Amino acid sequence: MIKAGIIGATGYAGNELVRLLLGHPQVTICWYGSRSYVDQRYSSVYQNMFRLVEDVCKDDRLNELAKEADVIFTATPQGFLAGVLNEEILSQTKVIDLSADYRIRDVSVYEKWYQMEHKSPQFIGEAVYGLCEVSREKIKKARLVANPGCYTTCSILTAYPLVKEGLIDADTLIIDAKSGTSGAGRGAKLPNLFCEVNENIKAYGVAGHRHTPEIEEQLGYAAGRELTVSFTPHLVPMNRGILVTAYASLVRRADGSLPSREELRAAYEKYYGNEFFIRLLDQGICPETKWVEGSNFVDIGFVVDERTGRAVLMGALDNLVKGAAGQAVQNMNLLFGLDETSGLRLAPSFP
Amino acid sequence: MIKAGIIGATGYAGNELVRLLLGHPQVTICWYGSRSYVDQRYSSVYQNMFRLVEDVCKDDRLNELAKEADVIFTATPQGFLAGVLNEEILSQTKVIDLSADYRIRDVSVYEKWYQMEHKSPQFIGEAVYGLCEVSREKIKKARLVANPGCYTTCSILTAYPLVKEGLIDADTLIIDAKSGTSGAGRGAKLPNLFCEVNENIKAYGVAGHRHTPEIEEQLGYAAGRELTVSFTPHLVPMNRGILVTAYASLVRRADGSLPSREELRAAYEKYYGNEFFIRLLDQGICPETKWVEGSNFVDIGFVVDERTGRAVLMGALDNLVKGAAGQAVQNMNLLFGLDETSGLRLAPSFP
Amino acid sequence: MIKAGIIGATGYAGNELVRLLLGHPQVTICWYGSRSYVDQRYSSVYQNMFRLVEDVCKDDRLNELAKEADVIFTATPQGFLAGVLNEEILSQTKVIDLSADYRIRDVSVYEKWYQMEHKSPQFIGEAVYGLCEVSREKIKKARLVANPGCYTTCSILTAYPLVKEGLIDADTLIIDAKSGTSGAGRGAKLPNLFCEVNENIKAYGVAGHRHTPEIEEQLGYAAGRELTVSFTPHLVPMNRGILVTAYASLVRRADGSLPSREELRAAYEKYYGNEFFIRLLDQGICPETKWVEGSNFVDIGFVVDERTGRAVLMGALDNLVKGAAGQAVQNMNLLFGLDETSGLRLAPSFP
Amino acid sequence: MIKAGIIGATGYAGNELVRLLLGHPQVTICWYGSRSYVDQRYSSVYQNMFRLVEDVCKDDRLNELAKEADVIFTATPQGFLAGVLNEEILSQTKVIDLSADYRIRDVSVYEKWYQMEHKSPQFIGEAVYGLCEVSREKIKKARLVANPGCYTTCSILTAYPLVKEGLIDADTLIIDAKSGTSGAGRGAKLPNLFCEVNENIKAYGVAGHRHTPEIEEQLGYAAGRELTVSFTPHLVPMNRGILVTAYASLVRRADGSLPSREELRAAYEKYYGNEFFIRLLDQGICPETKWVEGSNFVDIGFVVDERTGRAVLMGALDNLVKGAAGQAVQNMNLLFGLDETSGLRLAPSFP
Repeated sequence: MIKAGIIGATGYAGNELVRLLLGHPQVTICWYGSRSYVDQRYSSVYQNMFRLVEDVCKDDRLNELAKEADVIFTATPQGFLAGVLNEEILSQTKVIDLSADYRIRDVSVYEKWYQMEHKSPQFIGEAVYGLCEVSREKIKKARLVANPGCYTTCSILTAYPLVKEGLIDADTLIIDAKSGTSGAGRGAKLPNLFCEVNENIKAYGVAGHRHTPEIEEQLGYAAGRELTVSFTPHLVPMNRGILVTAYASLVRRADGSLPSREELRAAYEKYYGNEFFIRLLDQGICPETKWVEGSNFVDIGFVVDERTGRAVLMGALDNLVKGAAGQAVQNMNLLFGLDETSGLRLAPSFP
Repeated sequence: MIKAGIIGATGYAGNELVRLLLGHPQVTICWYGSRSYVDQRYSSVYQNMFRLVEDVCKDDRLNELAKEADVIFTATPQGFLAGVLNEEILSQTKVIDLSADYRIRDVSVYEKWYQMEHKSPQFIGEAVYGLCEVSREKIKKARLVANPGCYTTCSILTAYPLVKEGLIDADTLIIDAKSGTSGAGRGAKLPNLFCEVNENIKAYGVAGHRHTPEIEEQLGYAAGRELTVSFTPHLVPMNRGILVTAYASLVRRADGSLPSREELRAAYEKYYGNEFFIRLLDQGICPETKWVEGSNFVDIGFVVDERTGRAVLMGALDNLVKGAAGQAVQNMNLLFGLDETSGLRLAPSFP
Repeated sequence: MIKAGIIGATGYAGNELVRLLLGHPQVTICWYGSRSYVDQRYSSVYQNMFRLVEDVCKDDRLNELAKEADVIFTATPQGFLAGVLNEEILSQTKVIDLSADYRIRDVSVYEKWYQMEHKSPQFIGEAVYGLCEVSREKIKKARLVANPGCYTTCSILTAYPLVKEGLIDADTLIIDAKSGTSGAGRGAKLPNLFCEVNENIKAYGVAGHRHTPEIEEQLGYAAGRELTVSFTPHLVPMNRGILVTAYASLVRRADGSLPSREELRAAYEKYYGNEFFIRLLDQGICPETKWVEGSNFVDIGFVVDERTGRAVLMGALDNLVKGAAGQAVQNMNLLFGLDETSGLRLAPSFP
Repeated sequence: MIKAGIIGATGYAGNELVRLLLGHPQVTICWYGSRSYVDQRYSSVYQNMFRLVEDVCKDDRLNELAKEADVIFTATPQGFLAGVLNEEILSQTKVIDLSADYRIRDVSVYEKWYQMEHKSPQFIGEAVYGLCEVSREKIKKARLVANPGCYTTCSILTAYPLVKEGLIDADTLIIDAKSGTSGAGRGAKLPNLFCEVNENIKAYGVAGHRHTPEIEEQLGYAAGRELTVSFTPHLVPMNRGILVTAYASLVRRADGSLPSREELRAAYEKYYGNEFFIRLLDQGICPETKWVEGSNFVDIGFVVDERTGRAVLMGALDNLVKGAAGQAVQNMNLLFGLDETSGLRLAPSFP
């Protein structure tokens, strides 16, 4: 059995990691780390785990945990892992980081968008961006995996094949994203109160959300050049789920005609045709977050709008699963040579 | 007192008309029309009106009603009014139509998007598009007002000043709209069941929604030429509210520089500075549907994104008020020379 | 115009007071008190009031306010008013207290349930319990009104006529109450986060909720003796609304037969037949919180269950209106000799 | 592998059966029965199953299915199974009926509450009431299992040990139940529309809900005599979950004293101490539906209220799992001698 430690186990993503790992046949959890709840029973913090988890929460002593665990998941605030990671840890265990600390290659970009100094840029180089469907082979050999953000996973996977194949003009890409409230975390803040979120929708972080450079970097690799995209997140009155609606101009063929729906479909099939966790929906079906809830699936659909010359791309995932804990487990499976779907074959729950 | 009749009084927009007109000091409702509930007490269909409305529902006999009423509101399915309207009616009463029958000037465009024959195109010419802030003077003299759609009101008002002033390139306009579920009406359809909508978000009608040509026509007048826009509606798990997030490339000045935030603000002020129902939010504030709930306000905010050269425009309204019944009452006030805000000075309700 | 000051204007009940008083034809608000937001614009705290309220928040200097205001509403935490109230204030202005400080006649009962010392018990005697439909005449002459709690208003009004008429055995009374989340206030606490409340229902404060003694005292007056009731509140994933479902054994007649539905109806009619704000629903109709939302109505229905010999009583109100701010305004109308419904004739909003 | 057929696979309970059986290591689904969707792909009706289920829906030919399947689940309207069941079917396969057709021993009681003739009362005698924790041994030997209702499972399990041990007076039992909306099924009916349910709570079926006689019969067995209880269901704006709050007078000891909290706890421990799916919560913890969502757990808590001499009992479960499909699978496990928790060890999902 693989021994897994979780730092930040009492956030929503941490609790989802616990849920998934409890159901994983090859893993046992050896450490429930939570600075806020040290010495309290984990199940007193998350009553859903009553009788399923008997452990008490421990502190975030990464050096000590590295000796015990085969893999460490860090579901921690920005900057935490960068502040404590060292070679000794990485020589003893694998690390899958759910924060943004190692997602961005250019440290100056990180420091600009996150408004903090990066304390261990020396590990950025070896960190592998853990978007499994795109970087599978690199992940298998990594010591340190930068698990992608929730919005980013959905945005990149939705647009990737069309950018890669040059079917859309990536400079015209506009990503309008809608997220459930669990993405805002479990902190007791006024804007996340029930009465503030319920019966309400709003955009936030307009033109300045931290997932923007991550999307630009990864889609830039697909395009083979630097990109700038518009990305706007919205808060939706639901617990889970991210829906991305993306718009881009279709690149006309030499004869001035637009690429067809079939060509776009073929591009998606080329990259995702064999992917278990990506479901290309039938023509006319739009993704809905409810259809993927609780699962590691990403559902993708698209429309070719000849009237405007644009493609409208849509992707949906569960922000806590494929957008966080599920993808982290998928990365773990890759790191340890397991079946990539192990522990992740949960059917979505409806309603 | 103005005597008002409502045809389609048992839809959600019809009920909202009743709520607003009950609170209007110069109006009395003389006719609660509802084909489905003829002879039933209105308050048995809408228990909120118990003890406030004693009337029973009547059929949709427009000819008869025209003799009684000073103004008729038709909150009816597409094609109904076009099928029954005649000169006799219009010579006896004012008509404010909440359906789309007279919103679109070009009958072939109407017939293409609505997939039905228009039965009385002879009245399209005299119908006035009832977007009060844009067409106030024309409305005052009308007999037939085409009350704008919910998505359209929000979309047009959000973009209008910037299109009119040429600050954005209207051909790049992409409108991503999110609506509460009351916009789908009170029909008993599976996709509108609680368990299908709750904890879910989806796009629908992608590249084909009927409000698209209405937006294009009206913004086209502002631009002085024909336009094509991308418009995508989404269904949000809340009762009321529409949020529009719109994206467009800023038009660079002759020197290649982008227009500033202040210039955009000035354009909004120019057209809306004296408008009671349009609230231009302070810098950094994004509109939220909850802040306008129950009121006739439209809240508008925007961000100039120098990185991408685009403006991100945001507008929020209550789809049943400014997006339907409230604007209809505002139009009525104009038609009868009343204070435009009469009966509509309701403060938004929070939470 | 009556000049009204609000202490605690930035809580949810405070904001509802603002909404109602803005629409009240005989009142102007002269003081927006909020300790947490002193010197900030009120509309920056409650964006719904943008452009409607230009004032900045002031501190809670009651002595100063008493000189300016004709009436002061205190929507403050328990113990606040008791700590600052004095004869000078009461000689200068009327006070309507939305907290529990003066609701309970027996100071030892207050101190036991609220776990705090009462700092000015000398005013308890003159305070009038502001349940308008029950104590109307006393309220008219009061200087200090103790505005009832939200659960209490709903519980008492639902059971009052049957207790008063001896049709139910008040010792068997069990009140199962369900409340929307605005009742929990705007404090940033983890249990009130959207993701904790949404898709969830729970009981809380079982056998120990502070509204219990208030219900017992008032129903005790109706019964003419001391009572003990079971009261259990529940948190429901909605913003507004309280539903009370109450159970009690019917008191058999001398011949052993049960009182009939008609007798119970007659009792309700006797006490509420002329009340504007209490709507006795037709037979077979159960109250729903949605049908009273935004209004000052209480909807009441009941079922005589011959099988079990019990009556099931149901009452619904909007906790922020009739359960707080609306009743406070109704009390103000009584205090100043205005039409009791002034500013409160708002029709419920649906959906 | 056990071959399972589902009749009524396109209801919400049917879809939950599919979800659970797909994850069950010893079962394969051989028949997706749905009269409404015959010949349509199952995944076109439930898009969550896209790529997981390739089958098309079949008709409800029970005779044919009985030859193929080792077990048949009928998640069908009342009266369906009673109308088609015969000895030949029962001699070929096991039947687990999620409807109420065989839950009530006395056919006249069934016919009175369900207002329909029972077409095959001859099988009532052999049917076993499938409340696993209460009737485990009988279930193991059954051919026909009457899977309990959702409200009933929660109500009975919450009260059972205290009734059985005589600690509460079962004649005083009042059950106030709150359910998510999936319990109302997937039929397109106006009262189940999003806008009617959302932001609303109501009681329904007061003093007449069909689950009442089922609760009375089963708790009557525990008490050793006939019982009458008050049962009131409520509709809550959430997808899943049932919360039961039950009230009953404690039975005083010979010396007039009340039984203690410890004695009640001991009674629960006696019956449930070894039950995997029943979690007795720690003192002071109230059950919340969210903590069991997606799982087969029932969480139970209680309070001894010395002031009123009553116990307040609380139970929570997921109406689609332990209240329907999960318990059906648990029954199947018992029928086939499998580990009772097989396929059901899912941790609750939060949030």
